Amino acid sequence: MSLSALPTFDDVQAAAARLDGHAHRTPVLRSRTLDEALGAQVFFKCENQQRIGAFKFRGAFNALSQFDAAQRRAGVVTFSSGNHAQAIALSARLLGMPAVVVMPHDAPAAKREATEGYGAEVIGYDRVKEDRLAIGRDLAARRGLTLIPPFDHPDVIAGQGTAAHELLQDVGALDALFTPLGGGGLLSGTCLAARAHAPDVRLYGVEPESGNDGQQSLRAGRIISIPTPATIADGVQSQSLGELTFGIIQRDVTDVLTVTEEEIVAAMRFLAERMKLVVEPSGCLGLAAVRQLGERLRGQRVGIILSGGNVDMARYGAWLAAA
Amino acid sequence: MSLSALPTFDDVQAAAARLDGHAHRTPVLRSRTLDEALGAQVFFKCENQQRIGAFKFRGAFNALSQFDAAQRRAGVVTFSSGNHAQAIALSARLLGMPAVVVMPHDAPAAKREATEGYGAEVIGYDRVKEDRLAIGRDLAARRGLTLIPPFDHPDVIAGQGTAAHELLQDVGALDALFTPLGGGGLLSGTCLAARAHAPDVRLYGVEPESGNDGQQSLRAGRIISIPTPATIADGVQSQSLGELTFGIIQRDVTDVLTVTEEEIVAAMRFLAERMKLVVEPSGCLGLAAVRQLGERLRGQRVGIILSGGNVDMARYGAWLAAA
Repeated sequence: MSLSALPTFDDVQAAAARLDGHAHRTPVLRSRTLDEALGAQVFFKCENQQRIGAFKFRGAFNALSQFDAAQRRAGVVTFSSGNHAQAIALSARLLGMPAVVVMPHDAPAAKREATEGYGAEVIGYDRVKEDRLAIGRDLAARRGLTLIPPFDHPDVIAGQGTAAHELLQDVGALDALFTPLGGGGLLSGTCLAARAHAPDVRLYGVEPESGNDGQQSLRAGRIISIPTPATIADGVQSQSLGELTFGIIQRDVTDVLTVTEEEIVAAMRFLAERMKLVVEPSGCLGLAAVRQLGERLRGQRVGIILSGGNVDMARYGAWLAAA
Repeated sequence: MSLSALPTFDDVQAAAARLDGHAHRTPVLRSRTLDEALGAQVFFKCENQQRIGAFKFRGAFNALSQFDAAQRRAGVVTFSSGNHAQAIALSARLLGMPAVVVMPHDAPAAKREATEGYGAEVIGYDRVKEDRLAIGRDLAARRGLTLIPPFDHPDVIAGQGTAAHELLQDVGALDALFTPLGGGGLLSGTCLAARAHAPDVRLYGVEPESGNDGQQSLRAGRIISIPTPATIADGVQSQSLGELTFGIIQRDVTDVLTVTEEEIVAAMRFLAERMKLVVEPSGCLGLAAVRQLGERLRGQRVGIILSGGNVDMARYGAWLAAA
């Protein structure tokens, strides 16, 4: 991957202009309790309160809003059983184009219904026997659809970068910024925004211990692929980084950190109890890492992206209730 | 009660100046889902994200910040097992004065610990055999403390009014505004602010069905007292309005509405699932009433005060999990 093929901060700024009036400019919250415990200043960017409940709306809308007339008429196809599916479905509805989402047969009914609720056509596949990328490409070719994958696409990355862009506009320079890491769309977009605003900021991706392919990749200097990890953080269960996201992450990121499942649940409870925020497990990764670092952040200005809040209420309630 | 003894909008404005830099200016959030369902525009004032997790900080800090030097040296006394206790304790700590909180022996340990955590002295009493007001007055007399009760005090009322004041500053005129109703501090303060900003706005207090003393009082034209109501909305379990709060409510409020326990839980789940907000049962009363009115709010601009978010995580988790 040539560096010249990677999106830049200019693309993030252009994405911010496209999203203006369509995406929410989400609040930035603070916790005096946490600040006092750490001796630091921590700023939370609340993408759990973004449209569809996650930052994914930013990248999807940025990509779809650049379709030409013929692309809009034909529509978009993607593969996802998570927040990207709803983000594509809603963006397509807002922009008046058809959307097809390839989703495994065993995806939760609620996810399928939410995606269909936005007017998208859902096509099921067998997670074990079939390849979702091949299905997506085949649909794109047969129906003339444009494929927008969940993370490894320049317009998706640039769109995701607008969250950190807004955060840094709102709070000024930071010493460190923590972002959940799955396929790397949010982290690589964050890199583009943060390196432009604050060249010296330390940038961290955070993964569950069981899904540390990003950490392995950064250390190996090449993309490492792993089996689908077992973690409650279902938003970061991707098996590997993408070509584009790895290129940016390798260039810009300070380090990739890991946290345990117990640390994720503890962060989720802190966010509910102290900050009155519902955050899905993947969205809690940044805070889990910050709490793990603790004293080492003393005196610093720290940003955390709370990436989403879409969580099954029965499971969420059980996590909160199990003190 | 003479109307001339009641606090006014001037007092709310003075309170806002005192709170500036001490209370959070809490966010105002919206839900496209709710707006589309109702055909209305609904604005949520997020006092669950106020300091100590509830609007009560506003009234307590406004009252204590007006103490003279002798009062500050001696300190404050109050009676409360809820959010007012923590609000007084934190305000006293910030203003460098002693605080005594009279709390029943059977209050939850977490509440007692939170209050003591802010440096207040907690004095227990027997809920059945003893009178908390008498204990508070006796402590005030013996130790020279100033008694600041939970709601029926002009400075407390004026302070609580700053939440609606900020909401109306931020969003402009409203057609209707819904406020939880317990002892009436928040509702009467809301009246003072709202009648000044928007003289024609319809103002509603909302109570649990089982604790409708406010509704009874408004209809009877005098304060009606009831036994402590059985409701999950523990922030509004007061047995009657106060003299001051009833005076304002009788003069300014359009009506008092009631909602069922099931409607409270449904509103709590909506706030968690759709808006990613943790709101305690009392804080959900306004939304529960708005959802009950439904179609009748079509085309209107509606405000809701989410009064607090302090809820035991085990109970909260169980409410969310029980779909």
